[in-house]
Amino acid sequence: MTVALLTDKYELTMLAAALRDGTAHRQTTFEVFARRLPEGRRYGVVAGTQRFVEALGQFRFDDTALATLDFLDDATLAYLADYRFRGDVDGYAEGELYFPGSPVLSVHGSFGECVILETLVLSIFNHDTAIASAAARMTSAAAGRPMIEMGSRRTHEQAAVAAARAAYLAGFAGTSNLEAERRYGVPTMGTAAHAYTLLHTTAAGPDEQAAFRGQVAALGTDTTLLVDTYDITTGVANAIAVGGTELGAVRIDSGDLGVLAGQVRTQLDGLGACSTRIVVSGDLDEFAIAALRAEPVDSYGVGTSVVTGSGAPTASMVYKLVEVDGIGVAKRSSLKESHGGRKQALRLAKASGTIVEEVIHPYGQPPPTPSGLTARTLTVPLVTGGEPVSDATPAAELSAARERVTAGLHSLPWDGLKLSRGEPAIGTRMVPAQDR
Amino acid sequence: MTVALLTDKYELTMLAAALRDGTAHRQTTFEVFARRLPEGRRYGVVAGTQRFVEALGQFRFDDTALATLDFLDDATLAYLADYRFRGDVDGYAEGELYFPGSPVLSVHGSFGECVILETLVLSIFNHDTAIASAAARMTSAAAGRPMIEMGSRRTHEQAAVAAARAAYLAGFAGTSNLEAERRYGVPTMGTAAHAYTLLHTTAAGPDEQAAFRGQVAALGTDTTLLVDTYDITTGVANAIAVGGTELGAVRIDSGDLGVLAGQVRTQLDGLGACSTRIVVSGDLDEFAIAALRAEPVDSYGVGTSVVTGSGAPTASMVYKLVEVDGIGVAKRSSLKESHGGRKQALRLAKASGTIVEEVIHPYGQPPPTPSGLTARTLTVPLVTGGEPVSDATPAAELSAARERVTAGLHSLPWDGLKLSRGEPAIGTRMVPAQDR
Repeated sequence: MTVALLTDKYELTMLAAALRDGTAHRQTTFEVFARRLPEGRRYGVVAGTQRFVEALGQFRFDDTALATLDFLDDATLAYLADYRFRGDVDGYAEGELYFPGSPVLSVHGSFGECVILETLVLSIFNHDTAIASAAARMTSAAAGRPMIEMGSRRTHEQAAVAAARAAYLAGFAGTSNLEAERRYGVPTMGTAAHAYTLLHTTAAGPDEQAAFRGQVAALGTDTTLLVDTYDITTGVANAIAVGGTELGAVRIDSGDLGVLAGQVRTQLDGLGACSTRIVVSGDLDEFAIAALRAEPVDSYGVGTSVVTGSGAPTASMVYKLVEVDGIGVAKRSSLKESHGGRKQALRLAKASGTIVEEVIHPYGQPPPTPSGLTARTLTVPLVTGGEPVSDATPAAELSAARERVTAGLHSLPWDGLKLSRGEPAIGTRMVPAQDR
Repeated sequence: MTVALLTDKYELTMLAAALRDGTAHRQTTFEVFARRLPEGRRYGVVAGTQRFVEALGQFRFDDTALATLDFLDDATLAYLADYRFRGDVDGYAEGELYFPGSPVLSVHGSFGECVILETLVLSIFNHDTAIASAAARMTSAAAGRPMIEMGSRRTHEQAAVAAARAAYLAGFAGTSNLEAERRYGVPTMGTAAHAYTLLHTTAAGPDEQAAFRGQVAALGTDTTLLVDTYDITTGVANAIAVGGTELGAVRIDSGDLGVLAGQVRTQLDGLGACSTRIVVSGDLDEFAIAALRAEPVDSYGVGTSVVTGSGAPTASMVYKLVEVDGIGVAKRSSLKESHGGRKQALRLAKASGTIVEEVIHPYGQPPPTPSGLTARTLTVPLVTGGEPVSDATPAAELSAARERVTAGLHSLPWDGLKLSRGEPAIGTRMVPAQDR
């Protein structure tokens, strides 16, 4: 299936106009960046890079696609029929932190080959980055307790797969989404819902123990039994009566989770089920997760909040033309000023590893590193001459990105990990081009 | 491509347990409804129905899918290999309004065949309904002026296609998304972005007129020129200098749109371009659109706000087991009480057409209509014996749904159209089953 029609019409009308007046072949750089973080956020996590590199290889106009483009002239259709991206892409490795102005991706090539990628680039980065950025806050709030992403039902069915990947990238232990495991190797988890318990209702009434027996028989004693369909105290008693004291876990999906977790822990311990874990779910976000830190919770199921970016469902990244035939260009409208020219970025850190500043500088002109600080180059090659630089599997790429998120969170100053609204954790310094 | 893996793992483990203990073949009804509207919303618009009916026909487990399900026993894998949905579905026609508790979809069949649809049903309805519900508020705010959906870049690339469809369903005139036209016949629109103007920069500096000349040469005088890349007053002068007084439109994408629209209208009229239209875009939501009612704006381009549901990116619909072998079932947890039993719904209206109440009643037991009111049945058959009831094309379905939204907005009491936060426009009355 082609991804080339996942594109705004104006990309192709611009191409048509540029082919006609001869400007389509000018050499350009387009840059992906966010002018700001979502309100009050202190950092963001770059995600989507690998999905974009993969999509780039599929960005071709087949006959079916071309047949729908009857608003274009023959020269443009011929250009699209031959199209494949042959340029270069560099940018932040997936999983890196980003801040306002960070040039997270730069696409280099002719105007024609770069401009038509805009919509797809931004769809992928704006979605995946929004999810990963929210998920990373939950990861730091969970302080080492595992989280399962289970929000597929709260977002578009294909967005759900990408969301599962982005949440895993940002520290979640796994997902409920089967396609995310097939496509990206994200571990899947999950046992049963209230429907399974309710199913075991007969003319004689509900029968929670029958449901638990059925589940344990099929899935084993290490399963997680959902105990809040009727009465939680009875549910826990039924769970241990059926599963025994070696039962894997119980899940609570409603009510005051902090209070209930404490009560259930006491009840489980009293029944001798000291190793039976407690899973909680139900409208959890990073704040609710942080509030449960002191409670005897073993893991979290997180749905709506993570797949909708916890209040920031899009990362507001833009794809801007910054250079034409070596000349820096920029829009000059109020409040939306862009900085022209191809760029790269460095992140400065103290000897302890704590980051202090991000420096964005003209391509090939890194500024001197202040004494006492180390500088790490953030911009790495991703695509050269249209071909991906890495030949790692999607699962290996994802694993490497996951490690970058862990390292990134460790590198933040203390203030950067606060969940409350605040300023970006570090400042961004833009070094002007020497010829400007 | 199968959609069957767009599913939570626990649907399949529940199926395995139910097959093993013999309950998988019990006859069930699952119901899709929202316990509440997004905070402060006065109505919602049902969307996703047609996409779900289409997906249902593709919900099959092929060998590739089955090979990934190594956590299931052989009996469950054999069940899935043979799986196709053979039950019935009824619900609200797409484009109907809905309120808290409205049974927007009911799925009838064996537990096994119904339970595994949960994730896909909800992904589709929660996404599409969130977008359509936000879009309908924009439609009423725009008061007849056309709106273009152009938010593809702010959401997942496949969600973008569904969002374009949902926005069109709810009254938008078209979309920027090419795939939405190919797949659903949504009209596409769009001409050029700032990149095209910036591209016409040379060593001598920017050349806005060259860009405009290129666009008019390729797209004709009826095109829309984007006039805010540099200075708007100069941009408008350049646009008319190049396009003449018959120029189709100018677009303003930044700044105080109300003030600028007035200034640009005066300037255009002064230049004799009295029929040149003004398109505005840039962070518009329903409130910004309403605030521009008095200004000389001809059409709106709407992006982020519509594709993210304008603050409510998911509709919070749930898929609940409500009946097993003819017995109503319901979860009994605090704050999440469900109402058991298969249901249907009526909407009561005054002779003027203004709606006054929604009545949800047990299947086949409609209550008497109060005198002076008319009752319209909302629940219609959608799938019978696994086959779609309608054989209309996707475009025809969409067109009919669009008309339902228009009729629905006309049927609301005045208060229901207020953009401010408030209560649902009409109340929902739940008629208990006679045997309960």
